[in-house]
Amino acid sequence: MSPVLSIPPTADRTSEGSSAITDSTPRTVRELGEFALIARMNGGRSQSTGVLLGPGDDAAIVAAPAGRYVVSTDMLVQDRHFRLDWSAPGDIGRKAIAQNAADVVAMGAAPSAFVVSLGCPADTPVAFIDDFVDGMWIEAHRAGASVAGGDVVRSPLLVISVTAFGDPPDRPVLRSGARPGDTVAVAGRLGWSAAGLALLAAGADLGKFPEVVAAHRVPQPPYDTVLGMPADAAITAMADVSDGLLADLGHIARSSGIAVDVDPALLGDPALEPVAELLGADSLGWILTGGEDHAFVATFGAGQPLPDGWTPVGRVEAGSGVTVGGEPWTGPVGWESFAEGG
Amino acid sequence: MSPVLSIPPTADRTSEGSSAITDSTPRTVRELGEFALIARMNGGRSQSTGVLLGPGDDAAIVAAPAGRYVVSTDMLVQDRHFRLDWSAPGDIGRKAIAQNAADVVAMGAAPSAFVVSLGCPADTPVAFIDDFVDGMWIEAHRAGASVAGGDVVRSPLLVISVTAFGDPPDRPVLRSGARPGDTVAVAGRLGWSAAGLALLAAGADLGKFPEVVAAHRVPQPPYDTVLGMPADAAITAMADVSDGLLADLGHIARSSGIAVDVDPALLGDPALEPVAELLGADSLGWILTGGEDHAFVATFGAGQPLPDGWTPVGRVEAGSGVTVGGEPWTGPVGWESFAEGG
Repeated sequence: MSPVLSIPPTADRTSEGSSAITDSTPRTVRELGEFALIARMNGGRSQSTGVLLGPGDDAAIVAAPAGRYVVSTDMLVQDRHFRLDWSAPGDIGRKAIAQNAADVVAMGAAPSAFVVSLGCPADTPVAFIDDFVDGMWIEAHRAGASVAGGDVVRSPLLVISVTAFGDPPDRPVLRSGARPGDTVAVAGRLGWSAAGLALLAAGADLGKFPEVVAAHRVPQPPYDTVLGMPADAAITAMADVSDGLLADLGHIARSSGIAVDVDPALLGDPALEPVAELLGADSLGWILTGGEDHAFVATFGAGQPLPDGWTPVGRVEAGSGVTVGGEPWTGPVGWESFAEGG
Repeated sequence: MSPVLSIPPTADRTSEGSSAITDSTPRTVRELGEFALIARMNGGRSQSTGVLLGPGDDAAIVAAPAGRYVVSTDMLVQDRHFRLDWSAPGDIGRKAIAQNAADVVAMGAAPSAFVVSLGCPADTPVAFIDDFVDGMWIEAHRAGASVAGGDVVRSPLLVISVTAFGDPPDRPVLRSGARPGDTVAVAGRLGWSAAGLALLAAGADLGKFPEVVAAHRVPQPPYDTVLGMPADAAITAMADVSDGLLADLGHIARSSGIAVDVDPALLGDPALEPVAELLGADSLGWILTGGEDHAFVATFGAGQPLPDGWTPVGRVEAGSGVTVGGEPWTGPVGWESFAEGG
């Protein structure tokens, strides 16, 4: 897999027992050097059972017991997707894994492995890398998988690219299966990440809302709520909420050839009200258009019971587009990667 | 898979028939916008048979008929792994795919799919993206696969992360199988990319050595030489030459617990002599330590015939380390991602 994975775990002697930072420990990745850095990143980790061959060769080998696998990839760029003054290195590692795991789970697939490419400046502290890698592994384990390999290169700013893999069920849940009459439901929090970002951007007293700020730093996709659904759940379509509820429902609406109406009365969140009051903001805007919480939105067959952990928020109708209480939403609609302010 | 793949092919109307750049075509990715950019990147492409679900949902689905798959990932950063004044966009796309395909093939696996994350400035010309994507597809087809999905984000400089997948044979070829007495052999060119880079760096008259410069811009890993080997070939270990022959043989030596001696008399390349003469350089240095050609180096059982396309370059011995004509190599030894000059 590139220069960086060319040291097999059996040759990983320099990193063993060196996890504590001491005065003699190299302080930057330049001092440590590429191969020692990789050995350190891979040292002492236990791969999940699906990873048949981990770091140390040209490529990893991952099991695909279903004869096929789900794959998704995302890139995070410093100062665009995270800020070093707002997030700790471990938070960034967790977020990078979580947002990719959510894409895999949004297909109904159980995460099996991740590979990660990291670009970083040569003067990046080794302690930063340690914490970042720890964060990745914490979230990978939370998602039931491990980090099977990757690449490290020099870059003027931090860039993280994660590719996530998963084992799909017999019938993966696509965006294209929603039908008129279906119930629209959400698993997980909406608007918390956007509210946390607003608190950080406003320089607000963060101590008042630690959970909201933490939700921005580390999304917590409810993997188990999706993967624990009974096999006979009447789910017809699903997506993870990365662009914002309205934007991601828009993707389902287009893919399925249907319309969605969201009921605002079902969407309020008392926990966000004091934040909105403090900042003079509208919490419904965060809930409808804030991305990055990596909640899941799905549609379920008309009249069928919702599985545990799912909350109804609207209904599928004939037509096209997404409305809120029967009206077009006139506020901001999601997040465009190349928009001026985005 | 992230915002960028949320438009299914069936919704890809804006990009149909719009591949020609006209006066009314948006000239930058900011003008085009993220979703239209993705539609344009995916429009009119035919997925290979192994890609069961391509762009348009949270994740792609790829076939793994062997019940397992090979995966490798690499990141390329502008001005570090390519320069915009030295390589055309199509060259960069081809190189990004080729270096990842080579990692997959170095396991003895046939490439099945790629996913790509691209970070680029908002003022990147759409024409640049068109040519870059065309280059990726050309090389993906050359490797027998297709681009199954990806991500596009804004970044202050170009960053490309490719993850490559492949179908492994019953016995993947690892780095750890070399045994004393084995023959060391190479398939593909060595030193050409380094020589081409030296010509570019020296501002030499490139017209004199077009093939050498082209070899730097677009590596041409001999996929077919590896994948076309008879099933009973006596191959015991393999790696792709990305760091340089000595460095990559060093990985095989460490993984296998053996030593390698390279015979310099077997390594000269007449095509590189006039380049070395022009630049006052040593062509053997390029051949032994220049990476990026993505040739393949492998070991074959003692006394066994080499398959077509493989040239002997040395021998496996008991011990450790890599020597050249029985002596340690005292020139530069490969490419360190975080070295000062690297």
